[in-house]
Amino acid sequence: MFKVAKFGGSSVANAEQFKKVKQIAESDKERKFIVTSACGKESHEDHKVTDLLYLLREHIRYGVSYEEILGMVESKYRRIKDALGLKLDLESEFAEIRSHLDRNVETDYLVSRGEYLTALCLAEYLDAEFVDAADFMAFNYDGSFDFEKIKELFGKRVQTEKKIVIPGFYGFLPNGRIKVMTRGGSDISGAVIANIVGADVYENWTDVSGFLVTDPRIVKDPLTIPFMNYSELREMSYMGANVLHDDAVFPVRMKGIPINIRNTNDPENPGTLILEDCSEYDKISPPHCITGITGKKDFSVLTVIKSHSSTEVGFLKKILTVLEDFNISIECAPITVDTFSVIVQTSAFEGQIYDIIERIKREIRPDEIYVEDGLALIDLVGRGLKSARGVAGSLLSELGRNDVNVKILNTGSDEHSLMVGIDAKDLETGIKCIYNRFILEDEELTRQRSAQK
Amino acid sequence: MFKVAKFGGSSVANAEQFKKVKQIAESDKERKFIVTSACGKESHEDHKVTDLLYLLREHIRYGVSYEEILGMVESKYRRIKDALGLKLDLESEFAEIRSHLDRNVETDYLVSRGEYLTALCLAEYLDAEFVDAADFMAFNYDGSFDFEKIKELFGKRVQTEKKIVIPGFYGFLPNGRIKVMTRGGSDISGAVIANIVGADVYENWTDVSGFLVTDPRIVKDPLTIPFMNYSELREMSYMGANVLHDDAVFPVRMKGIPINIRNTNDPENPGTLILEDCSEYDKISPPHCITGITGKKDFSVLTVIKSHSSTEVGFLKKILTVLEDFNISIECAPITVDTFSVIVQTSAFEGQIYDIIERIKREIRPDEIYVEDGLALIDLVGRGLKSARGVAGSLLSELGRNDVNVKILNTGSDEHSLMVGIDAKDLETGIKCIYNRFILEDEELTRQRSAQK
Repeated sequence: MFKVAKFGGSSVANAEQFKKVKQIAESDKERKFIVTSACGKESHEDHKVTDLLYLLREHIRYGVSYEEILGMVESKYRRIKDALGLKLDLESEFAEIRSHLDRNVETDYLVSRGEYLTALCLAEYLDAEFVDAADFMAFNYDGSFDFEKIKELFGKRVQTEKKIVIPGFYGFLPNGRIKVMTRGGSDISGAVIANIVGADVYENWTDVSGFLVTDPRIVKDPLTIPFMNYSELREMSYMGANVLHDDAVFPVRMKGIPINIRNTNDPENPGTLILEDCSEYDKISPPHCITGITGKKDFSVLTVIKSHSSTEVGFLKKILTVLEDFNISIECAPITVDTFSVIVQTSAFEGQIYDIIERIKREIRPDEIYVEDGLALIDLVGRGLKSARGVAGSLLSELGRNDVNVKILNTGSDEHSLMVGIDAKDLETGIKCIYNRFILEDEELTRQRSAQK
Repeated sequence: MFKVAKFGGSSVANAEQFKKVKQIAESDKERKFIVTSACGKESHEDHKVTDLLYLLREHIRYGVSYEEILGMVESKYRRIKDALGLKLDLESEFAEIRSHLDRNVETDYLVSRGEYLTALCLAEYLDAEFVDAADFMAFNYDGSFDFEKIKELFGKRVQTEKKIVIPGFYGFLPNGRIKVMTRGGSDISGAVIANIVGADVYENWTDVSGFLVTDPRIVKDPLTIPFMNYSELREMSYMGANVLHDDAVFPVRMKGIPINIRNTNDPENPGTLILEDCSEYDKISPPHCITGITGKKDFSVLTVIKSHSSTEVGFLKKILTVLEDFNISIECAPITVDTFSVIVQTSAFEGQIYDIIERIKREIRPDEIYVEDGLALIDLVGRGLKSARGVAGSLLSELGRNDVNVKILNTGSDEHSLMVGIDAKDLETGIKCIYNRFILEDEELTRQRSAQK
């Protein structure tokens, strides 16, 4: 039984956090593989090491002294080293980094040093073995992972009874150069390692106790989602619940490894467990009909009206072709007789909406065409929606009772999501009343039921 | 008679340079429209204001204090103001800029402030009228210029006998937002203004006395090119002679306005005059058969050999399709019987050359395929090449005499350029001996001839 435990930037932001990580790592023998991000912010005023390294790169680009920025990075690691009494030779490490700092320094090498140094510190502190991602995390030139090669190199490299600490975020190209992933990529590193070692679970330790049912900036202390499946995860992430990097799902999902989102600052909390199929758990504890509620602002609706267009061949296709030509990706597209609307992110229209309208006018000759900005979308996700009846109806009446005007309702054919479009100003009210009606009341009911038993 | 005079960053780097600009501007009444870049570097250790502003944007992006960077910009303008005794209220100007400095500050607005402030200073110093590019330099959303609108707005805005000073590099979008051009864009601003006012000449004042025949880092004090036509300009710029922004040509060329590259630090030097057609000047002073010699390193040759491929339909097309799929742009492609070579920038192959070779192998099944790196190209440009005979022959024998091995010779069908591919290590020797043989000896001959007359 092996676990891969990945710790995010806030989990390794300073010596205090390192101590929590040590306790977590040592409290479970199965946590054999530890993957770490670069040190995050210690306080609101502090800076992420990776941010500083990217900024350092810009200083080099513009030929402006980078000493102050590099000093901030150095002192961060020095404080951690001193507080934890580490022996690590930071001077040599930074001398090595400095020896690369000229105009041609490779950005990827430079910005990967945060994870590298953090992993070095953590490995010594945990009395674990440091294994550099540059020694085994092999990319193909197209940026995909070479799983075969990674497995082979990792197997050769790792032959120890000790715990293993690995820096996330980077790997290397076939030509040997360091290549970093997109920001937050340590999530992916952890998932790849879970895949190749065949872990039983991939723990992703962060600063929240898993996925919350909804945005805590809108609803105070929302419930945690205990179990969710991958399509719920995908849908919630798409709508802005940024807990896990999107690309971290594939490597574990292909091996059927569950992901467990955990909180370094509240290690007793079981967090959220993400599985291919939650049905075993659902038998014991049935889910709410809604797993999660997400909302996003800044959408626009483009509406095209043309009488008898419903019978006109190619009408829809023409509009979609125009939008495609302008590289507009569509959020959803409610269609009624002779009226076609598309919902897109307002920013996608920016700078080209007049050109788009003009071209649609020229090619479609519609009776009417207009754009409305200031739309918000609320997305309700849930594997329970399928079996629950009348949710759309209760939703509309609940929103109506709270004076939230629903402009668009999209039920989707997949039966596990429901989307409503409302005025951006109503977003908070909308989410609050949906949470109260579909989550809190449901919880209350469940509690009453178990009390009656 | 109107001239538009654009001054580059080095021409306005400090108060001393401002004085030179004043002298140049005032020495010619026809220099009515002055376009300025942002202050450039005063010394090797100094920084371009625009670089600092881009870096400031990065500080904001990563949430790291920008005071030091902004302070460098402020002190630059304060020193200029004090040295020139200007009255300009810099405090209010910087207070206005500061009021925009939050996470959402528009990059284009911020980085345009260099030209804005430089033009404000210069306008007061020249006792000229400041006309903000934000008031008339209208972009379409696609980034092209709306010449009609620019002309209309500029006409309304400019009604004065005074000289006009205009900041280069930026304009505004139909929604009113500031939009900057690519780096070096003030060249374009000047060209657009020359276009709309119908200038007789577009003067581009910089820190070199026009285009040099070849790279001064290779040949000591090479001659200046007195006249050149637009295709020579295009070819030399493409090969790396970076005097003028590429996009600055179109706006003046469409109106037949000559460009005159001049040196702020040597205002008596007539510099280089660029015209659609140099033939009038050529009658008086015939050009060398070679106008310019440029060289670039870091090219690779991919060679594909397949017997009987010359008779195989679609052989060439297949290879070109593969290269196109990998987004490789081709420098030149010498073809002989059954052998096809393409020369591309080595960086274009980077990260994908193995994939390219693999695909060509699969689709073409060649007898042989290989890549050679470390190629340099020397490009000889000249309207005189057309009438000169045997240049290619003399070139080859001259290079041979100097032990420079010519791997590729491409004469081009346009008859005004000749390209040779040689080993990168031979680049300097090659350029030097071509300069000596084709420019210096030619000059000497001309001098002897005029002496005999």
